[in-house]
Amino acid sequence: MPKVGIVMGSDSDLKVMSKAADTLTKFGIDFEMTIISAHREPDVFFEWAKGAEDRGVKVIIAGAGMAAHLPGMCAALFPMPVIGVPLSGSKLDGMDAVFSILQMPPGVPVATVAIDGGMNAAVLAAKILSIDNKELLEKVKSFSAEQKEAVQKKAEKLDEIGYQAYLEGK
Amino acid sequence: MPKVGIVMGSDSDLKVMSKAADTLTKFGIDFEMTIISAHREPDVFFEWAKGAEDRGVKVIIAGAGMAAHLPGMCAALFPMPVIGVPLSGSKLDGMDAVFSILQMPPGVPVATVAIDGGMNAAVLAAKILSIDNKELLEKVKSFSAEQKEAVQKKAEKLDEIGYQAYLEGK
Amino acid sequence: MPKVGIVMGSDSDLKVMSKAADTLTKFGIDFEMTIISAHREPDVFFEWAKGAEDRGVKVIIAGAGMAAHLPGMCAALFPMPVIGVPLSGSKLDGMDAVFSILQMPPGVPVATVAIDGGMNAAVLAAKILSIDNKELLEKVKSFSAEQKEAVQKKAEKLDEIGYQAYLEGK
Amino acid sequence: MPKVGIVMGSDSDLKVMSKAADTLTKFGIDFEMTIISAHREPDVFFEWAKGAEDRGVKVIIAGAGMAAHLPGMCAALFPMPVIGVPLSGSKLDGMDAVFSILQMPPGVPVATVAIDGGMNAAVLAAKILSIDNKELLEKVKSFSAEQKEAVQKKAEKLDEIGYQAYLEGK
Amino acid sequence: MPKVGIVMGSDSDLKVMSKAADTLTKFGIDFEMTIISAHREPDVFFEWAKGAEDRGVKVIIAGAGMAAHLPGMCAALFPMPVIGVPLSGSKLDGMDAVFSILQMPPGVPVATVAIDGGMNAAVLAAKILSIDNKELLEKVKSFSAEQKEAVQKKAEKLDEIGYQAYLEGK
Amino acid sequence: MPKVGIVMGSDSDLKVMSKAADTLTKFGIDFEMTIISAHREPDVFFEWAKGAEDRGVKVIIAGAGMAAHLPGMCAALFPMPVIGVPLSGSKLDGMDAVFSILQMPPGVPVATVAIDGGMNAAVLAAKILSIDNKELLEKVKSFSAEQKEAVQKKAEKLDEIGYQAYLEGK
Amino acid sequence: MPKVGIVMGSDSDLKVMSKAADTLTKFGIDFEMTIISAHREPDVFFEWAKGAEDRGVKVIIAGAGMAAHLPGMCAALFPMPVIGVPLSGSKLDGMDAVFSILQMPPGVPVATVAIDGGMNAAVLAAKILSIDNKELLEKVKSFSAEQKEAVQKKAEKLDEIGYQAYLEGK
Amino acid sequence: MPKVGIVMGSDSDLKVMSKAADTLTKFGIDFEMTIISAHREPDVFFEWAKGAEDRGVKVIIAGAGMAAHLPGMCAALFPMPVIGVPLSGSKLDGMDAVFSILQMPPGVPVATVAIDGGMNAAVLAAKILSIDNKELLEKVKSFSAEQKEAVQKKAEKLDEIGYQAYLEGK
Repeated sequence: MPKVGIVMGSDSDLKVMSKAADTLTKFGIDFEMTIISAHREPDVFFEWAKGAEDRGVKVIIAGAGMAAHLPGMCAALFPMPVIGVPLSGSKLDGMDAVFSILQMPPGVPVATVAIDGGMNAAVLAAKILSIDNKELLEKVKSFSAEQKEAVQKKAEKLDEIGYQAYLEGK
Repeated sequence: MPKVGIVMGSDSDLKVMSKAADTLTKFGIDFEMTIISAHREPDVFFEWAKGAEDRGVKVIIAGAGMAAHLPGMCAALFPMPVIGVPLSGSKLDGMDAVFSILQMPPGVPVATVAIDGGMNAAVLAAKILSIDNKELLEKVKSFSAEQKEAVQKKAEKLDEIGYQAYLEGK
Repeated sequence: MPKVGIVMGSDSDLKVMSKAADTLTKFGIDFEMTIISAHREPDVFFEWAKGAEDRGVKVIIAGAGMAAHLPGMCAALFPMPVIGVPLSGSKLDGMDAVFSILQMPPGVPVATVAIDGGMNAAVLAAKILSIDNKELLEKVKSFSAEQKEAVQKKAEKLDEIGYQAYLEGK
Repeated sequence: MPKVGIVMGSDSDLKVMSKAADTLTKFGIDFEMTIISAHREPDVFFEWAKGAEDRGVKVIIAGAGMAAHLPGMCAALFPMPVIGVPLSGSKLDGMDAVFSILQMPPGVPVATVAIDGGMNAAVLAAKILSIDNKELLEKVKSFSAEQKEAVQKKAEKLDEIGYQAYLEGK
Repeated sequence: MPKVGIVMGSDSDLKVMSKAADTLTKFGIDFEMTIISAHREPDVFFEWAKGAEDRGVKVIIAGAGMAAHLPGMCAALFPMPVIGVPLSGSKLDGMDAVFSILQMPPGVPVATVAIDGGMNAAVLAAKILSIDNKELLEKVKSFSAEQKEAVQKKAEKLDEIGYQAYLEGK
Repeated sequence: MPKVGIVMGSDSDLKVMSKAADTLTKFGIDFEMTIISAHREPDVFFEWAKGAEDRGVKVIIAGAGMAAHLPGMCAALFPMPVIGVPLSGSKLDGMDAVFSILQMPPGVPVATVAIDGGMNAAVLAAKILSIDNKELLEKVKSFSAEQKEAVQKKAEKLDEIGYQAYLEGK
Repeated sequence: MPKVGIVMGSDSDLKVMSKAADTLTKFGIDFEMTIISAHREPDVFFEWAKGAEDRGVKVIIAGAGMAAHLPGMCAALFPMPVIGVPLSGSKLDGMDAVFSILQMPPGVPVATVAIDGGMNAAVLAAKILSIDNKELLEKVKSFSAEQKEAVQKKAEKLDEIGYQAYLEGK
Repeated sequence: MPKVGIVMGSDSDLKVMSKAADTLTKFGIDFEMTIISAHREPDVFFEWAKGAEDRGVKVIIAGAGMAAHLPGMCAALFPMPVIGVPLSGSKLDGMDAVFSILQMPPGVPVATVAIDGGMNAAVLAAKILSIDNKELLEKVKSFSAEQKEAVQKKAEKLDEIGYQAYLEGK
C-alpha cells in the first residue's frame, strides 16, 4: 500500500518530481505517482484527493508551477500532511508558485519546500513517516550521515589538491 | 435570475467586494453574493460553482487574498468568464494574490483586475454582459461619460480656485 | 465581421499573439489582427480603437510589453471588454508589463491574463462571446473536455510505463 | 512528555507563536515552548535541538524573522520534521524570513508555512502526528468540519441580512 | 505664456504635484496646471497634449499612480521633454507606477524621477529650461547652494549640541 | 563644441551606450564620450563633471549598472540635466541600477530612462536640446514620423501576408 | 583621536545612526559624527572623506536611504573599511538603499548591514577594531555574553510564568 | 598562521570563492580555505568556527547561496568580523541569499558584499587587516591605484580609436 502520493499538474513537472520518487525509493517508502490537473479535471482531482486516505496514503507531495493551486486544494481535501513543491517553469522563476503554495489561510497548511525542491519534499515525507517508525528514522539518520560524509570528502580533496586544481578538475 | 455571481472566501473580503455589488446595482444587473471557502468547504464550493450555470449566472466575480485559489478553481468549474479580484489583506499587500490569480495555465484563464479592484470587477462584468445587450451598453457608455464629467469638474475647480485653495479645501 | 480585434505594439509580439489567433480560429471566431503602437502612432491607434465598435468588434485582445499602455488605452476608448496580455520581452521578464496592464484605475478595467498568455486571452474571449451563444458555449465545453482528456492520457501513460521511462521518452 | 517543541528567537515573536501553542492545546497535544537565539547563544541552541529527540519531541515548530536561521539550523540538528514560521517584524514584512527559511539546500528540508502562520504551524504539526494516531486524526477532521461550519454560518448571515447590513454590523 | 505644463490624473495626486508648482514658482517659471485622466477622457487628454506646444509649453510634468499611462502618452503626443512622477497611492507603494512610466519603448522616452518626486520634477524642468537661459541657470546654481548651506547648518548644529540633544529637539 | 557628454563606468557598458552615440549622430548633435569610474577614480570623475559646463556640455548621459552612482554624482556636480541609463549587467537584471539612479533625494534629480535604454537617453537629450532649437525640433518630429511609418509598414505587411507567413519570414 | 567616523546624508537619519553612536560609546570607542550630503555638497564630502585617514579614522560608518551613494563614495575615497547602513525612510522601505549600497563593483566593497541596522554597524566596527586590540576583543565577547544572558532571562521568565502571562505582561 | 578563513557550503561555490583566494594571494595575506555545510555537518562547522580564533584567523569570509545560514552562524560563533558573500546559484539569482545574510538581528552583524562578490570580500578583508598594518595599507592603496589606471587606459583607448572600433575589437 502506498504511503506517499506524488501528484503533479503536468508532465513538464516530471523532471523535478522524479527526484522525489528516486529519494522515496532510496528510503524504501512505497508511493503512487500521477499527473492530475486541478484546473483541467477538477472532478478527477477531487476523487483522487478524497480517496487518498482510503488508498493508504499518509502524506501527499504535490508539485505545481505558476498559479499553483494543486498543493493547496490537496490540503483542502486530504486530512494528513501535504507537502508543496513550487516549480520554476514560468517567466517568474517560481516566485508565483511560492506565493500560491505558501500563503495558505489559517487552518489549511501546506508544508512548502524550496523552489524545484523535489528531493527535499521526499526527505520531509520520510521525516514525517519516521515519527512512529524507528527503522525509517534510522534510515533518515544514515542519509544525513552520508550527506555529511560527502561534504567532508570534498573538503579533504580541496585540502589535498588546492582550490586551483579542484576547479580545473570540475 | 442572477446574471453575476459574486463569491469571496471570507467575510473580511466583504468591504472590497461590496463595491462590486454596489456597482452592479448601479448598472441594474441582478447578482447573487455569497461567502465560500474553496479550502475550508471544497465540496460546498464545488456544488456552488458547478451549479452556477443552471442558476443563470453568466459571469463570476471571485475575490480572494493570499494563496488565492478561489478565482482559478471557479474557472476550472464554470464555463463562462471568471473575473478575479486580488485582495490586499496579507503582509504582502496583495502581491501573493496577484500571482495566485493571474498566472493561470493555458486553457483556464481568469480575467484579473487590480488589487482590491472590486468596482472594476463589476464594470468588467457589465462590459462583458453588454456585448449582446444594447441597453446595458448604453449604460456602460453613460457611466464612462459620468466619470469623464467628474474629472472635468475637478479640473475646472482647480482652474478657478488654484491649487493652494484646492488642497486646503480637501 | 470580426468579433475580436487582436492588436499588439510591435511585430516582436507576434509569436505570443499568434497563439491567440490560432485559438480563435479553432473556436471559429472571426478576428482582425494588426500592429499599432499607442506611443509611436497615437492618432492611428485612436482611430483604430474608436472605430472598433463600428467594425463589429466585441472584444479586444491587446498584447504589450514593458510600460505596456496599449491595453489600458484600448479600455479608455472601447466600451466593451479589453483583454490584456503582458509580454515578457524586457529585462524584467514581463513584471513591468503586468503592473502596467493590471493596475488600472476604478472604472476602466482591463481583463489581465498570465505573462505571455496569448492562448488564454483567446479562451477568455471565447468564454465572453459564449454568454449569448449556445453553440460557442458548447465549443468551449468541448475544448475543456479535450484538455482534460489530454492530461488523462499522460496520467495513463505514466501509470503504464513508469516515470523513468516517461522521462527518457521526453 | 512533549510531542512538539515550539521555539522562537525573541520574545517579540511570542504573539504569533502563542497561536501555535493555543492550537496545539486545542488538539490536546503536549508541547514545550522556549526562546532561544541561534545567533546569540549557539551552544544553548545546539544542546536544545540535539536533545529534543530524547525529550520525546516529534516535531519542532520554529518561528523567526529577518535572516531567519533558527528553523534551518533546527533541521540540521533534529532528525524529525521541522516546521518554519516566517515572521513579519522587519521592514521587509517577512519576505526576508520567507527566503531564509524556505530555500533550504537538498537533504535538509524545512516545512515552511505562511508569513506569521503560527496557527497553521500547529495544524500542520497535528496532521503530522495524526498519521499514526486515529484519535488525533479524528480531531483534525473535526477541526476542519468546524472551520467549514464557521464559513457556512457567515454565508447564511450574509444571505439573510444582505451585504450592507453585514458590513455595518462588522 | 506657460513654459511648463503640470498634469495629473486625479485630484488625489495634487498634494505631491503641488510641490512641483511651488518649486517652479520659486524659480519664477510660468506654468499651467490641470487634472486630466488619459483613461477617463482620452479625447480631452489628446487635445491638451497636442495643443501644448502651441500654448508655449516647453516641458510637461506628468504625475500618475498605479498603471500610470499619463506620462508615456504625453511623450507620444508632445515633441519636447516629458518628466514622469510615479505616485505612491496604490497598495504597491508606487512600484507599479515606476514600471509603467520608466520602461518606455525605444524612441519615446519619459524622464522619470523618484517616487512622489514632485519637487525633483520641477528642479529637472528648471535645469532643462536653463540650457539656453543664463539667468535661470544662475537661479539653479543658487538653489543648489542653498541646499548645501541647509545641510551645513545641520552639521554645525549637530557639532555644537551633540546628537542626543539634536534628537530630543526634533 | 560638444553639447552632450556621454559617460559610463566601464567598457562593458559600451554596447548599450553606443546606441546613445549612434542616435545623437543621427540627430547631428555633437558629443564627447568617455569611460570614468566614480568609484575607482573619484578625482578624475570630479574634474570631468565639474569641467563639463566649461567644455560646452548642456546635457550629460550617464550609464551605470549595479550600485549605479555615476548618474547621481554627475547630478551633484553638473548644473544642467543629467540623464541616467540603468544597465542590466548584474545578476539582478538592472533592478539594482534602477533603484540607485531613480531614487534621488529632493533637489538633485536624475532623468532616468528604461533599463538599457541607450537610444532613449539620446532621444531625450535631443528633445531637451530642441527646446530652443527649431531645426532640431523638426528633426525630432521627423524621427517620430519615421518611427510611426516603420510600424505602419509592419502593419501593412501583416495585413497582406497574414500572421503565419509573417512569423515564418522572421 | 576618533577611531570611527559616522556620517549620514540628512538629519532624518539621526534616529537610526544614533544607535551606532550609543553602541560605540558602550564599547569605549572614540568617534566623530557629522551630516554630509554627497549629492548636495560633493566638495565638502570629498574633503571630509579624503581627510578621514589623517584625522585618525580607521572605519567609516555611513548611513543613507533611497539612492544611497554616501557609503559607496566613501569607499571610493577612504582606504580602510566602510560600513553601509541602508535606511528605510523611502516608500520602498529601504530596498532601494540596500541595492544602492550592497551592489558595489569589484575592488570597492562596502560592508553592508541590515536595513536600519545602526547598532550592528557599530558592533561590526568594534569587531574590526578588535583585531589588534585584545582589550576591545574582550569587550566584544562580554557584549555577546550579555546578549546571551538577556535571551536566557527571557526564556526563564517564559518557563516560569507561561506564555499567556508573558504576553499579558508585555 | 592564516589571517583569513574562507569557508563555503558546497564545492559549487568554489568558482566565486576562488576569486577571494586569488585576491588575498595578491595582497600576500595568508588564508585557510575549506568546504563546510552548516546544515549537513553542524558539529564539524561548530568546531571549525569556534576554533578559528585559536588558529589565528582574524576575518572569516563565508560564501553561501539560497537560505544562506553559513555567514550568520559564523558571526554567532566567531568574535571578529565575518564577511558574507551571497551566491547566485538558485532560481532567485541570489536574492534569497542576500536576505538570508544581510538581515541579521541586532548584535550579530555580517559584513555583506555584492552577489557573487568573491573579489570584494577579499578586498574588504584586506582593508580590515590594514587598519594596524601600514605595509598592507600601502598595498591596498596601490591596488586602488592600479584599478584607476586600468580604467584610464580604457578611456584613452576609447578616445583614440572611437567607440565603433572599440566595440568591434571586444
